[in-house]
Amino acid sequence: MEIIRIPQIMQDITRTYIMHNKTIGFVPTMGALHEGHLSLVKMARAENEITVVSIYVNPTQFGPAEDLSQYPRNIEGDTEKLTGEGVDILFLPVGSLMYPDAFSTRVEVEGLSRRLCGLYRPGHFSGVATVVTKLFNLVRPVRAYFGQKDFQQTVIIKQMVKDLDMGIDIVVCPTIREEDGLAMSSRNLYLTREQRAAAAIIYKCLTEASEAMKSGIIKVAELKELMGKRLASESLVSEIQYCSAYNPDTLDELEQIGNETLLAIALKIGETRLIDNILVAAGQ
Amino acid sequence: MEIIRIPQIMQDITRTYIMHNKTIGFVPTMGALHEGHLSLVKMARAENEITVVSIYVNPTQFGPAEDLSQYPRNIEGDTEKLTGEGVDILFLPVGSLMYPDAFSTRVEVEGLSRRLCGLYRPGHFSGVATVVTKLFNLVRPVRAYFGQKDFQQTVIIKQMVKDLDMGIDIVVCPTIREEDGLAMSSRNLYLTREQRAAAAIIYKCLTEASEAMKSGIIKVAELKELMGKRLASESLVSEIQYCSAYNPDTLDELEQIGNETLLAIALKIGETRLIDNILVAAGQ
Repeated sequence: MEIIRIPQIMQDITRTYIMHNKTIGFVPTMGALHEGHLSLVKMARAENEITVVSIYVNPTQFGPAEDLSQYPRNIEGDTEKLTGEGVDILFLPVGSLMYPDAFSTRVEVEGLSRRLCGLYRPGHFSGVATVVTKLFNLVRPVRAYFGQKDFQQTVIIKQMVKDLDMGIDIVVCPTIREEDGLAMSSRNLYLTREQRAAAAIIYKCLTEASEAMKSGIIKVAELKELMGKRLASESLVSEIQYCSAYNPDTLDELEQIGNETLLAIALKIGETRLIDNILVAAGQ
Repeated sequence: MEIIRIPQIMQDITRTYIMHNKTIGFVPTMGALHEGHLSLVKMARAENEITVVSIYVNPTQFGPAEDLSQYPRNIEGDTEKLTGEGVDILFLPVGSLMYPDAFSTRVEVEGLSRRLCGLYRPGHFSGVATVVTKLFNLVRPVRAYFGQKDFQQTVIIKQMVKDLDMGIDIVVCPTIREEDGLAMSSRNLYLTREQRAAAAIIYKCLTEASEAMKSGIIKVAELKELMGKRLASESLVSEIQYCSAYNPDTLDELEQIGNETLLAIALKIGETRLIDNILVAAGQ
């Protein structure tokens, strides 16, 4: 596995691959890799001739009160895992080359970025859209892989790719879960043992809501009450940011469940913010 | 010359060129082509294997009170001129395919877009940055050509290309002028014969200011007064929007002239907005 740190060199290598007609699959990450990331890597490997993984903890997608400085980093462990997966290139861009002094461009996906997590993390999705645009321009993939856990991110990136004619196939892969259902996330490392046990409530709540839908509840107000009560039963949940049923395309909150419904939750356990979601098809 | 109207087809053709290692030179225009545009095309032809010209009157860079509907259009004449220049592809994108219904992405170059013309045309440069990003993604040029007449536009696009790692060489070509010095512009077509004669004042004012600099004036306040008086001497000038000396990199107004100074003017003659500029090097 080759490790590249200079954006310009990454772009030169990409250009050579493209000239040789190689398909590039790309997995952008912030490191602290877990089985969720590795499932994306495996998919990229299976579908493309060249697999590029980036690790970059992008400062512009963190708010001033967020966890940028504490965000877990484990480059050695990550490198080992990616070598094991047969990744061709690990792109580890130098921060000062990503955002030099006069940097002043922003990519904004309006509307979608203001919903759900966007309400609690102003500027977050603009930071994501901007860095992903940069990474896409450097890596020039045919396909890029994202986890469904960050559902809103996948919707926003798909919209951006379409709007800006990037010509990249965005592949959304299933959320990988721990045995008790907790969605894998680098931020799970923040949790104490007690908090970690309590966090299982999120997926339980989602699956119960899905069951309730199958048993005939169609009013989202009812569903929401049920979910809210379930989450409130866990005393370590310190804040519920959102918890409801949404249109998976527009991310609008629904009044009645639709053909395909996104059930999504964002909450805090202690100081740790966790998100999860499931998609439920009507009649499932 | 091939005429392409479907963005997706343009992108497929581009991909084939890139795979065959052909360098693409790109001249984005809004049509109503004059000698200024054709000088860009000639340069693109000279420096690249394939030349692509786009004609697209981009609605998102016009303000609600601006001249979108009256903007001059002459596709037949334009096509003839471009065929004469040996252009390979004329890209004439269908509007509804450029901005379909759910379109919601915006590229913003902060700071630079708020200066000079940006103060009088809010949203204009965001519209330009967004459509140029789309066109660049569809055409994937090695080099793109812009006229110096739209100086601020060239500064903004260079910054965007650098910030977003687009890997495109932005080539700025000299302003082409009429015999009396008026910078060629599609908007000159709006002028009556009298207004057209009066418009020569802009370049006269710029050259006189440049002479004044050479004769030793270094305070921009003095230069500005001199320029303002000269413009005021032409009764058909209905509004002066800006007229001063600027840092050509940051577009900040100067207090004293620098090593390289941008003299720039925006004014209205009747309802027609005209802009022009010259770069003056110290000691020239």
